[in-house]
Amino acid sequence: MRRVPTPRRRKGFSLIRLLAGGICNTDLELQRGYYGFAGRPGHEFAGEVVESDTQSLVGKRVVGEINLQCNRCLWCRRGLGRHCPSRTVLGIVGHPGAFAEFLTLPDANLHTVPARVSTEHAVFTEPIAAACEILDQVRIPRNSPVAVLGDGKLGLLIAQVLIKITGAQVCLFGRHPEKLKIAAAAGATTAIATSKLPQAEFDFVVDATGSPEGLRAATSMTRPRGTVIMKSTVHGKVGIDMAPVIVNELTLVGSRCGRFEPALKLLQSGKLQLDAMLSDEFALADAPQAFARAAEKGVLKVLLRA
Amino acid sequence: MRRVPTPRRRKGFSLIRLLAGGICNTDLELQRGYYGFAGRPGHEFAGEVVESDTQSLVGKRVVGEINLQCNRCLWCRRGLGRHCPSRTVLGIVGHPGAFAEFLTLPDANLHTVPARVSTEHAVFTEPIAAACEILDQVRIPRNSPVAVLGDGKLGLLIAQVLIKITGAQVCLFGRHPEKLKIAAAAGATTAIATSKLPQAEFDFVVDATGSPEGLRAATSMTRPRGTVIMKSTVHGKVGIDMAPVIVNELTLVGSRCGRFEPALKLLQSGKLQLDAMLSDEFALADAPQAFARAAEKGVLKVLLRA
Repeated sequence: MRRVPTPRRRKGFSLIRLLAGGICNTDLELQRGYYGFAGRPGHEFAGEVVESDTQSLVGKRVVGEINLQCNRCLWCRRGLGRHCPSRTVLGIVGHPGAFAEFLTLPDANLHTVPARVSTEHAVFTEPIAAACEILDQVRIPRNSPVAVLGDGKLGLLIAQVLIKITGAQVCLFGRHPEKLKIAAAAGATTAIATSKLPQAEFDFVVDATGSPEGLRAATSMTRPRGTVIMKSTVHGKVGIDMAPVIVNELTLVGSRCGRFEPALKLLQSGKLQLDAMLSDEFALADAPQAFARAAEKGVLKVLLRA
Repeated sequence: MRRVPTPRRRKGFSLIRLLAGGICNTDLELQRGYYGFAGRPGHEFAGEVVESDTQSLVGKRVVGEINLQCNRCLWCRRGLGRHCPSRTVLGIVGHPGAFAEFLTLPDANLHTVPARVSTEHAVFTEPIAAACEILDQVRIPRNSPVAVLGDGKLGLLIAQVLIKITGAQVCLFGRHPEKLKIAAAAGATTAIATSKLPQAEFDFVVDATGSPEGLRAATSMTRPRGTVIMKSTVHGKVGIDMAPVIVNELTLVGSRCGRFEPALKLLQSGKLQLDAMLSDEFALADAPQAFARAAEKGVLKVLLRA
């Protein structure tokens, strides 16, 4: 940690004082050199607006969408600025991240946090939005058999979101009994992922393992005509046998960031089990220790406090 | 070719005399040992029913759906017998194929051929149905930019079906100017596939190349949130970089056999350019020569005549 000068606020941007940030696996991967981003990390945060051209935002507790769009291209005009080819991404691509005393984001990216949502829970808005993105892409009927692979932070949020919003019959496959308990408390059935996974049993399978094996397992667990939702950004080439995917007419859906509105609505409902997912917290000045802690096996969300 | 005894007709099956059969790439792959099927090949055919428990079928010219379903399992009850896990498949899995004087198929698999459809064109019913299957899986809006990769038999049929039924703006990418001409005559724009293919330009890309490179090219040619339709059954593992698929939130759809009804309707309409796709024909007794011809570079459909 070094003291950095308060960033210059561009027109249309707010200056935000960090309240708390969350360390995501992507941050750990950035540290390992993926994405070629050497700047300041941090894209999960809650903060307070200290300066803005939008006066109604000043003093408000906010969270912020992480994609900074150009507002001019086809994608931005279609309302899909998250896919703007010239976008920068907070703490990931070309825009300094949230793990600092101050950050800037366009006013249009900001959402005020409802009063009843705590700052610690607000930090989960971004990954909850990523979980909710599935619902914008795929219609999952009530009581559908859904498998979620991976009991990491994202897998646990996806399992909870699918249970609360779709009423699907979610089974979470993971390797950590203590993490599976969190999903069980939220209404999922759970199973330890072994080498013998069920074959062709689920209409929907979400891969949130973060590993190439996850996608291979997901395709074999999906019923003919079923859907695999790919939530693991795996680096490098994945060797996958596409013949059964074609013969069984599976649909594979890549899924990434989501809108913040449904995430904030879910947070406000208080229906998600988030306290059990908070493993530890550190002062911003102790960010290196926080990153080391977040990288430990079995650890879930680690917060950074300003 | 050997003389084989007329097959025994089981209850619910019709005995069919072959009129003409079509050699498909799958037949050539079977010959090379894929699928582990050592029986008689042939799944594209038109024939005449000579014996049946269904009297109205006797004497009729028919085509037949290739999947023989169990009629008892969940998939058969859902009307998806094409995915029945105990199915056999005409000339591919556990059921003797059509390249013989006589074949048998369940009455339920048979469709009578409309009078105005020639026997040669009727042989195309099965691959046209496979092309039409895309329309049962994916909604392609009128005037959508669609790329079809591969100017083989299936690629040419897919391009034609998409143009005639969806009104999409189809661009066929292939390597054979004389084959591309067939698609151009049907209303497609065409392009020689080079190493420099357009990037992120199409809302839908159909991979009908039959090669692992096809899928890789397809994913890079698809716009964010676009759809890749996988029509190439490639054997063995395909190394594919899933990160852009996830970041761009692509949907990959495996697509295989289709219903015969829309295919026969299209054939009856006379809207497809099929004569240009008939490369050669041989007598059934000259099947080995016919297979050799079908395997030659640049050759499209080769017929076997009874």
